[in-house]
Amino acid sequence: MKISFESDYNNGCHEAVLQRLIETNGAQTTGYGLDEYCKSAAMKIRQACELPNAQVFFLVGGTQTNATVIDALLASHEGVLAVDSGHIAVHESGAIEACGHKVLTMPANNGKMLPSDLKRWLHDFYADATWQHMVIPGMVYLTFPTEWGTIYTRQELYEIASICRENGLLLYIDGARLPYGLMSPVCDLTLQQLSSCCDAFYFGGTKCGALCGEAVVFTRSNTTPRHFFTTTKRHGALLAKGRMLGIQFDALFTNNLYWSLAKNAVELALRLRDAFIAAGYTMAVESFTNQQFVILPNTTVERLSNRFVFEQWQPIDKDTTLCRFVTSWATTIDEIKALETNL
Amino acid sequence: MKISFESDYNNGCHEAVLQRLIETNGAQTTGYGLDEYCKSAAMKIRQACELPNAQVFFLVGGTQTNATVIDALLASHEGVLAVDSGHIAVHESGAIEACGHKVLTMPANNGKMLPSDLKRWLHDFYADATWQHMVIPGMVYLTFPTEWGTIYTRQELYEIASICRENGLLLYIDGARLPYGLMSPVCDLTLQQLSSCCDAFYFGGTKCGALCGEAVVFTRSNTTPRHFFTTTKRHGALLAKGRMLGIQFDALFTNNLYWSLAKNAVELALRLRDAFIAAGYTMAVESFTNQQFVILPNTTVERLSNRFVFEQWQPIDKDTTLCRFVTSWATTIDEIKALETNL
Amino acid sequence: MKISFESDYNNGCHEAVLQRLIETNGAQTTGYGLDEYCKSAAMKIRQACELPNAQVFFLVGGTQTNATVIDALLASHEGVLAVDSGHIAVHESGAIEACGHKVLTMPANNGKMLPSDLKRWLHDFYADATWQHMVIPGMVYLTFPTEWGTIYTRQELYEIASICRENGLLLYIDGARLPYGLMSPVCDLTLQQLSSCCDAFYFGGTKCGALCGEAVVFTRSNTTPRHFFTTTKRHGALLAKGRMLGIQFDALFTNNLYWSLAKNAVELALRLRDAFIAAGYTMAVESFTNQQFVILPNTTVERLSNRFVFEQWQPIDKDTTLCRFVTSWATTIDEIKALETNL
Amino acid sequence: MKISFESDYNNGCHEAVLQRLIETNGAQTTGYGLDEYCKSAAMKIRQACELPNAQVFFLVGGTQTNATVIDALLASHEGVLAVDSGHIAVHESGAIEACGHKVLTMPANNGKMLPSDLKRWLHDFYADATWQHMVIPGMVYLTFPTEWGTIYTRQELYEIASICRENGLLLYIDGARLPYGLMSPVCDLTLQQLSSCCDAFYFGGTKCGALCGEAVVFTRSNTTPRHFFTTTKRHGALLAKGRMLGIQFDALFTNNLYWSLAKNAVELALRLRDAFIAAGYTMAVESFTNQQFVILPNTTVERLSNRFVFEQWQPIDKDTTLCRFVTSWATTIDEIKALETNL
Repeated sequence: MKISFESDYNNGCHEAVLQRLIETNGAQTTGYGLDEYCKSAAMKIRQACELPNAQVFFLVGGTQTNATVIDALLASHEGVLAVDSGHIAVHESGAIEACGHKVLTMPANNGKMLPSDLKRWLHDFYADATWQHMVIPGMVYLTFPTEWGTIYTRQELYEIASICRENGLLLYIDGARLPYGLMSPVCDLTLQQLSSCCDAFYFGGTKCGALCGEAVVFTRSNTTPRHFFTTTKRHGALLAKGRMLGIQFDALFTNNLYWSLAKNAVELALRLRDAFIAAGYTMAVESFTNQQFVILPNTTVERLSNRFVFEQWQPIDKDTTLCRFVTSWATTIDEIKALETNL
Repeated sequence: MKISFESDYNNGCHEAVLQRLIETNGAQTTGYGLDEYCKSAAMKIRQACELPNAQVFFLVGGTQTNATVIDALLASHEGVLAVDSGHIAVHESGAIEACGHKVLTMPANNGKMLPSDLKRWLHDFYADATWQHMVIPGMVYLTFPTEWGTIYTRQELYEIASICRENGLLLYIDGARLPYGLMSPVCDLTLQQLSSCCDAFYFGGTKCGALCGEAVVFTRSNTTPRHFFTTTKRHGALLAKGRMLGIQFDALFTNNLYWSLAKNAVELALRLRDAFIAAGYTMAVESFTNQQFVILPNTTVERLSNRFVFEQWQPIDKDTTLCRFVTSWATTIDEIKALETNL
Repeated sequence: MKISFESDYNNGCHEAVLQRLIETNGAQTTGYGLDEYCKSAAMKIRQACELPNAQVFFLVGGTQTNATVIDALLASHEGVLAVDSGHIAVHESGAIEACGHKVLTMPANNGKMLPSDLKRWLHDFYADATWQHMVIPGMVYLTFPTEWGTIYTRQELYEIASICRENGLLLYIDGARLPYGLMSPVCDLTLQQLSSCCDAFYFGGTKCGALCGEAVVFTRSNTTPRHFFTTTKRHGALLAKGRMLGIQFDALFTNNLYWSLAKNAVELALRLRDAFIAAGYTMAVESFTNQQFVILPNTTVERLSNRFVFEQWQPIDKDTTLCRFVTSWATTIDEIKALETNL
Repeated sequence: MKISFESDYNNGCHEAVLQRLIETNGAQTTGYGLDEYCKSAAMKIRQACELPNAQVFFLVGGTQTNATVIDALLASHEGVLAVDSGHIAVHESGAIEACGHKVLTMPANNGKMLPSDLKRWLHDFYADATWQHMVIPGMVYLTFPTEWGTIYTRQELYEIASICRENGLLLYIDGARLPYGLMSPVCDLTLQQLSSCCDAFYFGGTKCGALCGEAVVFTRSNTTPRHFFTTTKRHGALLAKGRMLGIQFDALFTNNLYWSLAKNAVELALRLRDAFIAAGYTMAVESFTNQQFVILPNTTVERLSNRFVFEQWQPIDKDTTLCRFVTSWATTIDEIKALETNL
C-alpha cells in the first residue's frame, strides 16, 4: 500500500468529525440547513471571525461554492478578475462561464495577484476607449493560500481590498485550504483581519478534515445577496440533509480542531520541505503551507513512485519534473519519515 | 420529542451505510469517483438493472442531478416536457432554466403524465403553424413515484416510451424515491423493465437510506453524453471525495438493503393509510407508496401536531386541510402505532 | 397578388421613414447609437413621454428587446410574471430562459392579466411554505395591447402598478404595438400615464412604420440598469450602424407620424370589425385595436383565402376557424373595401 | 466636416443596396426570412461558394452572429478556441460566455492563430492529467481578415482545418470583413477554398456595403445545426422583416458588387499605406487589407485629428501612438488624396 501525498482529499474525515456523525445519526431534524446543528456551527463560525452580523451558509464542494457565490454577487454583465492560475480560471470546467460570467485573467506571481498588477489592469481597462464593449469587472477572486501554496501578506491583502473599494469591486476569497494558510508560520494575517477585509469567503471543509462541505461567509449583513437560500437551490447546492454539513463544521469548530489539524499538517509539510532541501533538491516555489513543489530528477521520481503517490505537476526539461507533495490533517509523522528516508 | 412524518430526509443514514463509512474512513483513495468503491457500486447497479453497458455516475443531490442530466442531454434550444406538478417545474428554484432550458408543462393526472395527454400535447405543438417560434421539446421528464405518491403502470410507461421514440424525444426518470415505487404492492413494473425503457434515470440515495447521493444511470452506452465527467464538474456536482457516494451506494446495493428498506417503509405507509381510512378520513390521492395524502379536519391537524411533524400540504376549505405523511427507511412500527392510537 | 392582413410586419417602411434613410445615407457618423440622429430621436421620445430623466436605447427587434431588458433588470434567481398567452411565454423560443430566467405564468383574461389574479398569485406564492424552493418573482411583464388586441384600462394598469410597488416587483410593458393601443378610441390612458407607472417599456418600431427597431425607455434615471450599453452588446443587440435606428425613430416621432399612422390603422381595423359583424360573423374577442379576431365558417375561410392573406389562428370546431386579420400603418382603405365586398 | 477613417461602419449603405430597398419597399411579403428576396440571396451565395448543399441564414450583426452560431454548434460543456486578440475574446462584452461557453485563448501572431500554436495547445491540453477538469475545446474560431488586417495563407488555413478534423474540432470563420481579405492582392485563397475547408462562416454585410446584416453559411448540409431557425429566435437574432437582410445581400451579390466594393477599398488602403511609408512612418503590422496600422508621432496625430477621424489604437511610448486608418466601400480617392497631402 503506497503512502499518498497526492492531495488533501484522499482520506475520509477526521475521527472527531466521524464521531459526531455517528452520535447524531439517529436524530430527526428538518432539512435544508435549517436544523440546530447548522445553527450551532454558523454561530461558532461567526464567533471565530468576530463578525456577529455575518451570514453563514453550508454548501457541498468548492467549484459549486465558487459558482454559486460569484453568480449571486455579480450582475449578469459583470466578470470576475483572477490570476491565470486561479482555480476558477483553469480547473472548474467552465463552471463560472456556465453562469454567464467571464473570468478575466492577469498573470500570476507565484500564484498570487500582485496589488500593482491589479491596479495596472484596472487602469488599462478604463483607459481603453472601447471598454464598454468588453466585460466589465465586478469582483476580484483570490485563493488563500494559492494553488502554488503561497499566501498573501497582510499588506498585500489590504492593498487589494483598498483597490477593490476604490473601483467598486467586490472581494471574494476562495478558502478551500484556508487554515493551511492561516496556520503557516510565515502568515502575518489573522482570521479576523482576512474576513473583515473581504465581502465573502469560504472555509474549506473537504480538504480540511470533513467528508465534504464548505462554509460560505458573507461578512457583513449588507453583502449577503437577497434570497441566497433560493440561489443555492437553483445551483443544485442545497443539500436536503443539510445537517450533515452543519454537524461536520460544528465538530471542526469545537476545541480549535480545524486550526490544530491544519497547524500539524503545515509543520509536517515544512519538515518535508527541509528534507528536500537537505537532500539537495530545488523547491520550485517558496511555499510555507501544506503544498510543496519540488523539482526532482526523473530517476528520483520513478524511484519514489514505487512507494509514494504524488502529482507530477509538469516537466521542467527532459531530465527533471516539477512534483507536488501535499500533506493534510491525515498525514502522520511516520509517513513523513518514510519519505525522508527514501530521498 | 415529536415523531416526524415530515419527509424522507429527516434522519441520518441507515446503520449499514454508516458502518461502511466508518470501516472505510481510514483508507486512502484517489478522488472524483475514480476509486474502487465507486467502481464496485457501479457494477452492482449495472447488475441490478441487467444493463451491462450502462454508465453509472454518482452525484450529490436531486435538483443537481436533474439539472446536470437534463442539460447534458438536451441541445441548447430544446426544452423538457413535464407535468405541472413535476419537481423540476415547481420546487427546484429554476435550476433547469438556469441552464437555459424551458420546462414545458401539461396538467398532471394525480401527479402522472397520461400517455394520451403527451400524445395530444405533441400533436397540438406540431400542428401549430408557429411551432418553430416556440421551445422545441427534446425530452420527457417523469418522476417515479410522482410527487403525489402515484406510480406508472407498465403499460403507461411503455406507451410513453413509445411516444418518445416516435417523436425523437429522450425519456428521463427522476427516481429520488424510486424504490418506494418499485416496492409498492401495486407496482407491475420491474427495475429491469423501467430501466430498459428510458434513456436515463437515477436511483435516489438521499431519501432512501444514504446521507446524500444519487446514482445516475445512462442505460445504453450510446445514451451517455460525451464528457459527462466534465459536465458534472461544470455543474459543481463532482465531489472531490467521490468515494463517499460510492461507499454508500455499495452498502445500499449489498444484500438487497436498498429494496428491503423501501419495502418496509411502504408497508408501514399502507398500514397508516388503512388507519386513516378506518378512522373515517378521506385520502386525497390513491397512493400505495411511502407518501400518504389525507384530508384532515383542522382540529385533528392541531391535535396531531402536538406529537407529530407532518406537512400541511394545502387548505381544502376553511375546516379541512390536505396533509402529507411520509414514511422512510427509518420509520418504525412503534412510530406508526403511536400515530394510529392518536387518530 | 393577394392582399395581406397576415400581420403588421409584411411591408417595408413608411415613405417618410424611407425618405430620411435616403437623405442621411451619405453622412458619416460614429457607431453604436452614439450619433446625432439617435440623440435627437431619444430627445423627442423623452418629450413625448414627458419624462426628462428617462434613458432611451434603440434595439433591433422585439424578442431581443424583451430578453435584454428583462435580463438586465432581474437578479439571476428571479423570474418574470406573465399571462400564459404572453409573447415571452409562448413565441420567443425560450429567449428569456436562455438568460436563465423562468417565465412564471398565470391564466390570461382575453390576453390581459387581471389585477385580482396578480394579487391572488402573489398571495398564494408567499403563503406556500416552500416558496423559497421556487423561482421568486421579480417583475411583471405586460403587453400593451395584448396578443389578443385588448388593452388595459387606466384603473387596471394603475392597480397592477400599485401591486408591483407593494411587492417589490418591477413593471415592464412590451409595446411592440403600443401606438395601436394608445390610439384606440376605447383607450382611457395617455402615453404619459402609461410610461409614468412602469419602470421600463418599449415603443415598437418594426410593426409601426419602421424597417426594424424598438426604442426602450427606462422611465426614471434610477431604473436604468448600470452599463446597459454593455448589456445590449452582450446580448448581440448593439447595432454597429445604430444610426439606422435613430434615423427611423426620429422620423416616426416627427409631426406625430407614429401616432397618426396607428390611428389610421385602428380606424380601418374597426371598420373591418363592423363589416364582420354586419355580415353576421362572431368576433372572438372584443378588440378595438389593429388586430381583429373573428370566427369564420371554413367555407368562408377558403373563399377569402383566394384573394387575401390572414392567419388561421385555431380551429373552433370542425366547421369554423378563429381567424386573425391585422391592419397596419400600410393598410389602405381600398384594401379594406376589397375585403368588405368579399364577406 | 472631418473625413472619417474611423471604421468601416460609419456610412449608410451603398447606393445600389439603397436602391433595392427603395424599389421593394411597397411589396408585401411574409416575415422571418421566408420571403423570395432571402431565397434569391441565399441561392446567389450558394452559387458564389460553389456549395449547392450549404444552408444560408441572415442575421443582423456580428456579435449576435458569433454568439448564435457558436452556441448552436457547441455542446454545452465545450469551449471555443481563439487567439487572445480575437473579437469574441475581447470586444463582445462576454456574449459567448453569456451562452455558457468559455473562450479559450492562445497568443496571437499579428492577429493570426499559427497552426503550430494550435497543435501545441491541443497537445498540451490533452497531455495534462487534469484535462477533464478543464473546458474541453469544441471549435476553432478565426477571423478573416484578422483584427490586425492580416490574412491566413491557403497553407495556413488548410493546416488549421486539418488539425481541426484530426482533433474533432469544428472550424468557424468570422467574416465580418471577409471580402476585404479575399480581395487583397496578397491573398492566395479563393472563396471556394475558404468556404470548403470550414464548417461555418459568415459574409459580413454591415462593414461591406449594407446597412446591417450578416449571412451565415453552414457549408455542408450535415453541419447545419437542427432547428437553427428556432435558435436564431432564441438569441433574439430573427428579424420579423427578414426580407430587409435578403434584399441587401441580393443586391450585394448581384453583378459582383460585394467584391468590387471591397477590391476598391483595399486598393485605396494600400495607396494610403504607401503614402505613410513614403512619408517615413513605420507600419505596425504588415496589413494588405482595408485596415492600416501606423505608428505616428503625437504631433502628427494632433495635426491630422483636425481634419480626419481615426482611432488612436494604443500608445507606443510617450511620443508616438499606434493609429488605425480604415477604408471601406464608401471611401473615395479624394479622401485618400486629402490625407496624403496632409502627411
